[in-house]
Parts: sequence; structure tokens; C-alpha cells
Amino acid sequence: MNIQVNEDVIIKKNIAFLKKAEQLRKPLLHKNVAAKSIVEVEADASMIHGWKMRQIAPIQDLENYVLGQGDSITIDFGEHVVGFPSLSILPIGSPPDAPLYLKLTFGEMPVEIAEPFASYDGWLSKSWLQEAHYHVDVLPHTLDMARRYSFRYLKIEVIDSSPKYKVVLQHVKIKMISSANTHNLKERPNTSDFFQKLDDVSVKTLHDCMQDVFEDGPKRDRRLWLGDLYLQAQTNYETFQNQDLVKRCLYLFAGLTDANGRVAANLFIEPEPIPDDTYLADYALYFMTTLHDYYHATGDIDTLTELWPVALDQIRFAETLLDERYLAVEQPYWWAFIDWNDKLEKQVPIQGLIIFTLKQAISLAKILHSESTKKLTALLENTTKAAQKHLWDSEQKIFVSSSSRQISWHGQIWMVLAGILPSNEAEALLKRTQDLAPEIGLTTPFAHHFLVEAWLKVGNKEAAKQVLVGYWGDMLHQGADTFWELFKPNDLSFSPYGSHLINSYCHAWSCTPAYFIRKYNL
Amino acid sequence: MNIQVNEDVIIKKNIAFLKKAEQLRKPLLHKNVAAKSIVEVEADASMIHGWKMRQIAPIQDLENYVLGQGDSITIDFGEHVVGFPSLSILPIGSPPDAPLYLKLTFGEMPVEIAEPFASYDGWLSKSWLQEAHYHVDVLPHTLDMARRYSFRYLKIEVIDSSPKYKVVLQHVKIKMISSANTHNLKERPNTSDFFQKLDDVSVKTLHDCMQDVFEDGPKRDRRLWLGDLYLQAQTNYETFQNQDLVKRCLYLFAGLTDANGRVAANLFIEPEPIPDDTYLADYALYFMTTLHDYYHATGDIDTLTELWPVALDQIRFAETLLDERYLAVEQPYWWAFIDWNDKLEKQVPIQGLIIFTLKQAISLAKILHSESTKKLTALLENTTKAAQKHLWDSEQKIFVSSSSRQISWHGQIWMVLAGILPSNEAEALLKRTQDLAPEIGLTTPFAHHFLVEAWLKVGNKEAAKQVLVGYWGDMLHQGADTFWELFKPNDLSFSPYGSHLINSYCHAWSCTPAYFIRKYNL
Repeated sequence: MNIQVNEDVIIKKNIAFLKKAEQLRKPLLHKNVAAKSIVEVEADASMIHGWKMRQIAPIQDLENYVLGQGDSITIDFGEHVVGFPSLSILPIGSPPDAPLYLKLTFGEMPVEIAEPFASYDGWLSKSWLQEAHYHVDVLPHTLDMARRYSFRYLKIEVIDSSPKYKVVLQHVKIKMISSANTHNLKERPNTSDFFQKLDDVSVKTLHDCMQDVFEDGPKRDRRLWLGDLYLQAQTNYETFQNQDLVKRCLYLFAGLTDANGRVAANLFIEPEPIPDDTYLADYALYFMTTLHDYYHATGDIDTLTELWPVALDQIRFAETLLDERYLAVEQPYWWAFIDWNDKLEKQVPIQGLIIFTLKQAISLAKILHSESTKKLTALLENTTKAAQKHLWDSEQKIFVSSSSRQISWHGQIWMVLAGILPSNEAEALLKRTQDLAPEIGLTTPFAHHFLVEAWLKVGNKEAAKQVLVGYWGDMLHQGADTFWELFKPNDLSFSPYGSHLINSYCHAWSCTPAYFIRKYNL
Repeated sequence: MNIQVNEDVIIKKNIAFLKKAEQLRKPLLHKNVAAKSIVEVEADASMIHGWKMRQIAPIQDLENYVLGQGDSITIDFGEHVVGFPSLSILPIGSPPDAPLYLKLTFGEMPVEIAEPFASYDGWLSKSWLQEAHYHVDVLPHTLDMARRYSFRYLKIEVIDSSPKYKVVLQHVKIKMISSANTHNLKERPNTSDFFQKLDDVSVKTLHDCMQDVFEDGPKRDRRLWLGDLYLQAQTNYETFQNQDLVKRCLYLFAGLTDANGRVAANLFIEPEPIPDDTYLADYALYFMTTLHDYYHATGDIDTLTELWPVALDQIRFAETLLDERYLAVEQPYWWAFIDWNDKLEKQVPIQGLIIFTLKQAISLAKILHSESTKKLTALLENTTKAAQKHLWDSEQKIFVSSSSRQISWHGQIWMVLAGILPSNEAEALLKRTQDLAPEIGLTTPFAHHFLVEAWLKVGNKEAAKQVLVGYWGDMLHQGADTFWELFKPNDLSFSPYGSHLINSYCHAWSCTPAYFIRKYNL
């Protein structure tokens, strides 16, 4: 018996690429960080999910907390951390005449400490909820946890000791790990205090997601997704400059395409790199855009040359989605991501993304003197014309999907990024959309990223900054130490997974304020 | 801060004794044992606790059981085992996109698999209930458990995998550990098939309790108790003959007396030997009886000589319990064990045990030409006369406690063992007690052991055999693989701890049928 990898998909392993990826794998950097204080979770209707933490004592007081059956204590590390926690346990009273039975709950957010995981009924596996049970047979003991956790708050409950002894805790700390080297962090341009704070939290978010690969979220899914990689890589060039990690990730995707050359939307890394059986039109195109950015950040022509055919295959794959009019065709299955919004029709944003990507592809083709240049240029012309002809509603002066005439924020953003309107018209389109406030709006930091990029593309720095302040800044006001996977200001418990408990609160695709602030000198 | 060992008791560490004990510590023997079958627990009113196991498939079929969220499987090892289990887990379906979250429940008996531990409300720590939770982040995986478990049945529940994959299990096995070397097992005398079976289960019980020390029970308390040691050592001489392990245990107790020289009722072994803050009159005397038996089993005069003063101190301690009439005085606190029976007054059995022990002490004193011989002899005479004068009810022809005139089985047994009646009168006393069936009866195999010993002392092998068949044999009929800590045929759910879930079902003090069968050729 063997692992059955996606019975319908044949994987084409490029051993040379995978070897290169493996060679680029470096030991993770680590740093010990001690817990900072003892806290209590309390209800606060003004905070996200209705909870906040109240500090009740500095960590130096920990030895005063003698814990017996049913007692618990919540420890605050003072910042988001990713790694291997440890703590020492001392018995108090008679010699321990029964094992100590502990339950540990890890929370990136107060809600994970406040609301019992037993209440979880979302559709993602409850195995992502970070908890652990330990029986400690011999005391004193140092509990060195072998599993990696991502959290700020750690709740420790004594399920039972015995009537004859209790325990106190000491040396609560974590061996933090990351592949981001803080010594390499680029200097930040001068900016406002608030933007400095936005940048700090962005940088921390990226730092904690940079592990053996660029993970989407260290709590969940801990996986290499192309959409996240695209934005992480951009932020990385402006911050930690770990260009080899980007290269490693590109080679991993390139080494594990399907038989048609499609890159997977995401890869599992352990026990060996394995492509997930999810293929998305937008994520495939991000292979090209990530390669484009990587080349411009590094000038690494060898990698560009070697991976170019793989990138080109993704364009070929995108072409298969076009009808005879060169219009992207909505598919009946989950064919593209764009954003967590069930009502969103993806035709317009995908059409924009294809055009956007074609322009980057053509620029790379020219550098490589690729014979594809001509074909790509023709495709660009045809897809652009198709968008102008079939997706532009000249009456409403807005892009709409061809059949249902749906207006989405995403469609406008991607058409602006595609650059098929003159800059002033594009800016007017964004402003018009803002006034219109389409029902089909943005739900994730990922989608908001492209809104900021679109405002910057049309040269409206102020509007871009307003999104950073209004959207990411709102997370800051709600106490974010790292930026969250999901954030809908008008629906603070929003989760596409059926429960806010399972959301990731340190998520790669949300780290881009640092990219904007640094690259555009905001 | 440091461990506070029993604030009221000062421990006198004899470093030389503890060193000797440490030198006698040997690496444990181990043996890999594979699981045998797949079972299901089902209700059966005719069985103890109302549960039995039904085999549903041989272990070879394990790979046919594909387990997803909420599924569970119960594995039967076919025998009681103690050690470190392991199992391999293979994913089935898409690549695992979430950790696997497992809950494992270990049962010495079907009841531990059938009744949820959450229902436990006994007064011993629920940390003794054997369960474990595992998050497995990378599959396939071999789960090597670092904690020692004592069980026959292992229930494995998939709390969650993910909608995209399930798992199958393979290679469910255990690294069994023991300090009993089966190659040294003495040949068994010819006996009936039923007694062979009694012997097998006794030997297995002892085997599984023989670890780094003679433990009372490998599930709970996993500790060195003097009462258990006394009986284990006796059975050991007739079976595994690990005389060094007895010696090691004697030196441990001798190395950790209190300032007055009292040995503790039990010791904790890890992280270092520590006496529990429980002192019991009967258990202290078992130091002398165990030393007596050890000398006779080994002829090791050096150890006898060295430990004699410690044994003598226990007599001195027993003396402090006597009043001016040389009668043991009932104490208002938990001063002696004898049996799990709250109503039992302990004066008569303790008086009997003191006399019994004095006789052994005098025999040893003579071997050692000890100057204590005379004093011990005088004490024997005085305590014997006191028993005859104040505890013997000549009208009822039975021993009664001096104030309340309580008649207990225990009192008669210990007076018979004390040998203060001629043999025929002693036998008549036992028969009379049997006919009387006193309300204060025997509740544990420990107490039943002394009943068998008493019948044998008066030369009534048949009556002794009837107890083995009727009491231990009843456990066999109820499916015992190893003999239980507690067994009351008329109250099968009896537990002195408030729940049968926490009872130990492989318990040292219950292993003595092998001793009787072999020593007395039953």
C-alpha cells in the first residue's frame, strides 16, 4: 500500500528541479523568547470576536500561581511566536502520587483561549485547532514540545494532579524558528508613526510565515500556496531579501507539475514535496508573475531561463480557458480563487489577470529572446480587445461579466492592473466603483492588496494609503500582532470555513503593507 | 524552590544503602509483541461491569479498516501487556491537508473501553486513566509512544483527519518491558488444568508488575509498596527467582526511613527514590517478614546482617502501639491497612501480625546471635498472653476486638497465622468463622491471600484450594488475564476509590496463587 496522490492527476516530477530546491533548503534560524506576562481573557464587545486580554501579573510572578485540579493560567508571550514551546513544572506539597494531566491551548487571538474548541463546527478539520494533552509521570519535569505551534497566548489547564500535590510553572519560553534573517532586514524609509506600526506588523507576519518554504500561515495550512508566495516574495524583496527561499519555492512548483505542465495551486512539503490536487487558473499565472519579480529582484538570468518554459506552460493553460472570442469562460467547478466570495463571478478578474500576466511574460520573453514573444503579443492583443469589447459596459462605464453582467470590485481592480485603460480613465473607474460600492466586494487582505496596487498603478497614493489605514489599520486597532487571513470590518466573525476559531491570524497574503510602504515610499 | 517532601517527616537517608539499591538496578528486559485481533466491546450482563469483548477480525485484516473523522477501532493484544506501544499510520486518499488528530484509550478491561473516562468521578486522580491524544502533522508516520502503558485493549479514535483523506493502521505492537526473566521461570509441579491456568495468570500478573522495582500495579500506582512486595517476593522465589530485585527493594526501604527508623509504607522511585508520607503499622512489619523470607530464599547472611537493625526498628515501632497490657491500640487515624474495609477494626489482626512477625524476628535473631533475642522473646510472650487474655472470647470461641467486641475474618486469620492456638483448634476456629460468615469480611485478594495461608498453616489443603478456586477462579471465569487489585464476588463494581474505572486489573498482591500452587504442591 502506498500514498495515493490524486488518482486522476499524473504528476511529472522534474528531479533536477527538485534537487535544486532541496539544495536551497537551509537550516532554520532560531531564537529563544521568554513569556512576558500572565493574562486573563475577558469579554469586550468593542473588540473583534468580543474578547480581549487583560494583563494580571508580570511573568516574574508565575511561581506564585499554585495550580491544582481544575486550575488554569494563561500566559502571554507579548508577541506572535512560531516554534517549539517549553516550560518547567515543579511539584508543591507531598511527593506526586499520580501523574500530572495537563491540557494546553494555544491562541493567536484571545478568542481561541476564550471559546472552547469543543464548540467548533466548521468544515475544516478540527485538528488545526492548537491544543495538546500531556501526562507527566515524573516531576519536576521540563516539557519540551516536539510539535510546532503558532500563537501569542498559551492557556495551561491542570486537568488533574492529585489531592496531595499541586504544581507551579517556570521558564515558559519558546524556541522561535524562521528562515527570515532579521539582520538582513532592509532599512525602512521615513514614514509616519502609524505606517511604521503597519510596517512592523507586516514584517512580523512575513517573518513568522517564512519557514522551510513561504508558508501561507504557520497555524493553518502551513503550506506553500502560489497566491501567498507571489505577495510574500514581493514583500521579501523589500524586507528580508531571502531571494534563495523564493527560488527554492519556484523550483518546487516547477518540479511537480501535472502531465500537462500545470503547476499546482499549492504544495505539501513533508514528508516530501507533493502537489495538492487543486489547480487554479489565477494561482498558475502567479508562477509567471513571481518568476518575473524574482528576476527583477535578483537578475538571476539562469533561473529565469530554466523556469521560463514552466511559466509559459501556465499561459498555455490559461489559453485553454478562453473561448473563440478570447474571453475567459466561467467554469462550473472551483477553477480560480481571486477572493473568498461565493457570489463572485471570476471571468472579469481572470481576464484582467491574464492580460496583466501576458505583459510581464512578454517583457521576460524579450529578455530571453524567446520565440514565444510574437504569439504572446498576439494573445495579449486578442484578450485585451475581447475585454474591451465584451466586458466593458460603456453605458455604466464599468467592467461586467459577459453573461450575467455582474459588477464586482475584483473585476475593476484587475482590469486596472491589466492596464487596458489610460491611467486617468482607470483612476476614474476606481473612483466610480468606490462610489458605486458594488455588492460583490472584497473580503480578504489578499483581494485588498490588489486594490492598493491598483490605486498605486493609477498614481493615487492617497487612496492607496487610505486602504492601508482603513483596512489594515483597523486590524491594528483590533489588536493585531500579525495580520489576519480574513478580515471583514462589517462582519468581524467572518470565516469561509464556518468558524472564526479556525481562521489563521498570521497570514502571508496579509503582509504586504510593508511592501507598499517601502516600495512606494508611503 | 524545591520539592517539599512531607513537611512533618524528617527522612534519614542512608546513602550506602541507596547506593547498594542503585547498583542492583538492572536494565529492563524487553520483547516486541504484536497485536492479535480487532474487537468490539459489547454489553453482557453476565460479565463483570456488564461488558465483554467480541472478536470481529484477525489483526491481518487491519488494513481493511479505513478510518476517517469520528471512526474508531479497538485492538486486542490477546494478553495483558506493559510497555511502549507503537503503530504505523498510512494516509488514504488525497495528500493529507490537515493534521491527523487521534485519541487513544488503553484498557486492561473491557469496561475501560466501554465507559467514557469523562464519566469518572472517583477520588483518585483521573490522570491514572490511560488515554492519550496525538496530533500527527506528517503522514505516513510511525507513532512511537514515549509513555508506558498497561493494557490489553487499545481503542484508537480519529477525532479528525480531513474530508480529503482517511487513514489505515499497520504494525500495532508493543515493546513489553519487565525485570522478570522468563528463562528463569521455575518448573511448575504437576497440577490440574485449572490450577495450571491459575498459575499462568498469577505468573503473568507478577511478570507485568516486576519493573525497576516490584510495582503494586503497572497501571496504578506503579509504586513500591511494602505489602505488595512481601507477597511478590514470596511468589518470585517460586517463579522468576529475581532475588536481586527483592534485595534492591529492601535496601530502598532501608535507605529512606524517617528519623525514628520507621520504613515508609511505599516509595516513589522517580526522579529519585522518595518515601511517601504514609506510615502503616502492618506494612512496616512486612519489612521484617520480607527480610526473613529473603534470607531463607537466598542464604544471603550479609544482607540479613546489614538490614537487621532496620527490621528490628519496625518491631520497636510496633511496640509503641501496645498499651500496658501489651495489646495493640486502635488509633484514630489511618494507622494500618490490613484490607479495604472501612468498618474493620484493626486491633486483632495487628496483634496477630505482631506475634507472627515476632516469631520470624526471633528466628532471625538466633541466626544472627543477636542480643535482641531475649527482649523479642519476652515481647512475644507478653503479646501472646495479651491476645489470649483480652481478645479471645471463650464463650463464642472466637477472637474479638477488646472494646467493641468486633468479629472480623481478618482477626481470626491473623491469630491463626500468629500460631497461638494448637493446630486443630486453629482449624476449628477457621471453620467456625466460615460458618459464622462474619459481616466484616475480606474484600481484596491481599486479604484472601492470608486466608489461604491460614488454611495451609492448619494443614487443610482442600479448604485452601477452595479459596483459590472460588475466589481467584471466579476472576478467571470473568475473563481475567492478570489478577485484579479488587474483587468482591457479591459487588463486582467495588472500588475503594469511587469508580471501577480506576481500579488496577493487574495487581501485585493478587499474584500469589502461583506461590501457593508451587510451594504447597496444590
